[in-house]
Amino acid sequence: MVVKLVVAVRKDLDMGKGKIAAQVAHAAVSCAIKAMKEKKKIFDEWMDEGQKKIVVKVPNVDEIYIIKKKADSMGIINEVIQDRGYTQVEPGTVTCIGLGPDYEVYLDDITGKYKLL
Amino acid sequence: MVVKLVVAVRKDLDMGKGKIAAQVAHAAVSCAIKAMKEKKKIFDEWMDEGQKKIVVKVPNVDEIYIIKKKADSMGIINEVIQDRGYTQVEPGTVTCIGLGPDYEVYLDDITGKYKLL
Repeated sequence: MVVKLVVAVRKDLDMGKGKIAAQVAHAAVSCAIKAMKEKKKIFDEWMDEGQKKIVVKVPNVDEIYIIKKKADSMGIINEVIQDRGYTQVEPGTVTCIGLGPDYEVYLDDITGKYKLL
Repeated sequence: MVVKLVVAVRKDLDMGKGKIAAQVAHAAVSCAIKAMKEKKKIFDEWMDEGQKKIVVKVPNVDEIYIIKKKADSMGIINEVIQDRGYTQVEPGTVTCIGLGPDYEVYLDDITGKYKLL
């Protein structure tokens, strides 16, 4: 089964592409390290398969927490990322959520309905 | 001393912001995991300080390899990222290079001259 990591990014914030990339990278690193410790087998599969990653967009912060609630209930690793706020957004602003790495079939149940960023 | 991770992205490729974010995330995850194994003390400092990340832009693939050569000579962890090429770019296209995490003073010697993406 395919293993992937998904990052869902808020599209209601005025972030440039470098800012978005840094936030998504933050989510991916945090999730990957958590998975390495808590879901070693899935983490190894993900690395062996080439670290598949998908970036999707969600309308607002409420959607981030809806995703988090669903991921928590399914036992899927997730990390909500808050920006330090040096530039572009206010300190503490939630910018994105990372999910997985985990089996694609489970992740698609949570984020399959969102469009790619 | 501040520890950071830098990703230098090619600006001569026609990548959308989601694609860029996924490539930068790939570089960050690869570098972070390598650092965790090879430079544990610096990795721990980086995580404790909140995973500082900078994304800069470089003109072309030659610049990626100039950066790599300099990083290698300085003993700085680096990962050149090739896209799988499912979308937007040809398979195997080099999209970016990740550097560090390492001390800011060393990284700035390599990438300090490039503009933020």
